[in-house]
Amino acid sequence: MIRIFVTGGTFDKTYDEIHGRLSFGDTHLQEMLRLGRARVEASVRTLMMIDSLDMTDADREVIVRNCQQTPETRIVITHGTDTMVETAAALARQVSGKTIVLTGAMIPYAFGSSDGLFNLGSALSFVQTLPEGVYIAMNGQHFAWDNVRKNRETGVFEPLT
Amino acid sequence: MIRIFVTGGTFDKTYDEIHGRLSFGDTHLQEMLRLGRARVEASVRTLMMIDSLDMTDADREVIVRNCQQTPETRIVITHGTDTMVETAAALARQVSGKTIVLTGAMIPYAFGSSDGLFNLGSALSFVQTLPEGVYIAMNGQHFAWDNVRKNRETGVFEPLT
Amino acid sequence: MIRIFVTGGTFDKTYDEIHGRLSFGDTHLQEMLRLGRARVEASVRTLMMIDSLDMTDADREVIVRNCQQTPETRIVITHGTDTMVETAAALARQVSGKTIVLTGAMIPYAFGSSDGLFNLGSALSFVQTLPEGVYIAMNGQHFAWDNVRKNRETGVFEPLT
Amino acid sequence: MIRIFVTGGTFDKTYDEIHGRLSFGDTHLQEMLRLGRARVEASVRTLMMIDSLDMTDADREVIVRNCQQTPETRIVITHGTDTMVETAAALARQVSGKTIVLTGAMIPYAFGSSDGLFNLGSALSFVQTLPEGVYIAMNGQHFAWDNVRKNRETGVFEPLT
Repeated sequence: MIRIFVTGGTFDKTYDEIHGRLSFGDTHLQEMLRLGRARVEASVRTLMMIDSLDMTDADREVIVRNCQQTPETRIVITHGTDTMVETAAALARQVSGKTIVLTGAMIPYAFGSSDGLFNLGSALSFVQTLPEGVYIAMNGQHFAWDNVRKNRETGVFEPLT
Repeated sequence: MIRIFVTGGTFDKTYDEIHGRLSFGDTHLQEMLRLGRARVEASVRTLMMIDSLDMTDADREVIVRNCQQTPETRIVITHGTDTMVETAAALARQVSGKTIVLTGAMIPYAFGSSDGLFNLGSALSFVQTLPEGVYIAMNGQHFAWDNVRKNRETGVFEPLT
Repeated sequence: MIRIFVTGGTFDKTYDEIHGRLSFGDTHLQEMLRLGRARVEASVRTLMMIDSLDMTDADREVIVRNCQQTPETRIVITHGTDTMVETAAALARQVSGKTIVLTGAMIPYAFGSSDGLFNLGSALSFVQTLPEGVYIAMNGQHFAWDNVRKNRETGVFEPLT
Repeated sequence: MIRIFVTGGTFDKTYDEIHGRLSFGDTHLQEMLRLGRARVEASVRTLMMIDSLDMTDADREVIVRNCQQTPETRIVITHGTDTMVETAAALARQVSGKTIVLTGAMIPYAFGSSDGLFNLGSALSFVQTLPEGVYIAMNGQHFAWDNVRKNRETGVFEPLT
């Protein structure tokens, strides 16, 4: 049984047609799991629906606490890419005995050309096979939480060493 | 370094608009890797481009030989779902020391609503983390080659036991 | 008030994932009108759901009779492209006092890359502005029923003269 | 021969993945014409690439002048919906002897769920069949420039009377 926590991020950005801007509505996770015909046992819970640039320490505490308290030992977290590494570090310091994989998208799922479905398939697979620890899964790769950074110029996650 | 062998299947079916039917053209794998922004080192080679119901023993030999001869030890094979289990068995009998993951799609990638991108993200992740052996990755799950069947009525892969 | 008659054709072909082939299910017309945010008053009726290569004289009679009997004077018919010209001729011989526009698609709507939405927007616009008569609307163009043929090699509708 | 002038608007908004916001790049018009398999003779020219809320009187003068000077008498203009009615009024005051149709989209074309392709098919059809004058084509409907407003709450264009 896999637990999926939704926190927002580009994954779930949608187009607000009345105001002509990006916004957050409901998560697309259930629809993505349906499209991917996922048959892994996964329960989805939305913790927040925010841009990760707006994520506060208190928000991170909510994520940490949920990961601590949920009975599942395999957890996927959808998260904005900008501060994904920070949240991964907070989780690594405070959660043990679990495999946690953070993932996100560079292009909103609601766009036809999103990398979200690929990343979701990837994260759900890594979480089933990686040993305990906190990881980031992007671009078909996985990184340990303490050996990764987002290159802000290229938008790509890279190992530190 | 991951080797990707393309054999056709629903993944790569396209719509032939002159004759109004499904057909095979070029593989969509490169486009899918681009869309998924995959940064795993992967080289793609098309072995054949056929419906897996039309796959002969000779075709399977071609797949086996390519898996034996390629220097990479991590291999993803895109394959029609109908005889994917048969090809997995042929590979398990004749290839050793490698992690081979077969994957496919229930809906062609060229359709907007395909499960292909999700499955590709999943297969590329499983192949990096599973031990040596032959596996099928579908629906976000992985199955050992000798404990899986395709349920023809539901279109879903299931464990035998 | 516009009447839309659905007869099938490439427009409405869908992918049958259990049998791995194209088939007809329900029409996509309502979904397409919603996507196009159409606000023309239009009522949709499915007369048949077939490949136009399989359309018989009896089927054509059904279409003709429905066009005769419906009170609306502006009618759009979705139709397979292969015999669209034949149906247009049957309508021109037997229906008068109405503007009838036949349209279709080269790529099924269910494919991401369909021309269907463009053609539907086009047909609904032509039917509001063209004088009485029977027309074919494809590729952003309109043709009188007796001055058009489908070029089978290129898949394109062309004027005869 | 139809002239298409591009001015930006929701039609052409794209997702800037480095900064995580909407922006304007190149127009999608050529790609949309290709997808719609349009065979009307149309030449596309980008006049500006802006949100119509940012459109100044000077920008409107550029549009007016281009419509006056182009030899074609049938013109489609893609435009943001927020001030489309204002630009239509400026055109009606200063351009005569031509059929001008303004159109736009509520959802960017780059989103899978855009109404853009439908509206483009509609606008290209109306411009071929409507008499001289300035019109707005949205939602499969056409409105004379002086009998239309955008309902800001619903995002829908409505007749004044």
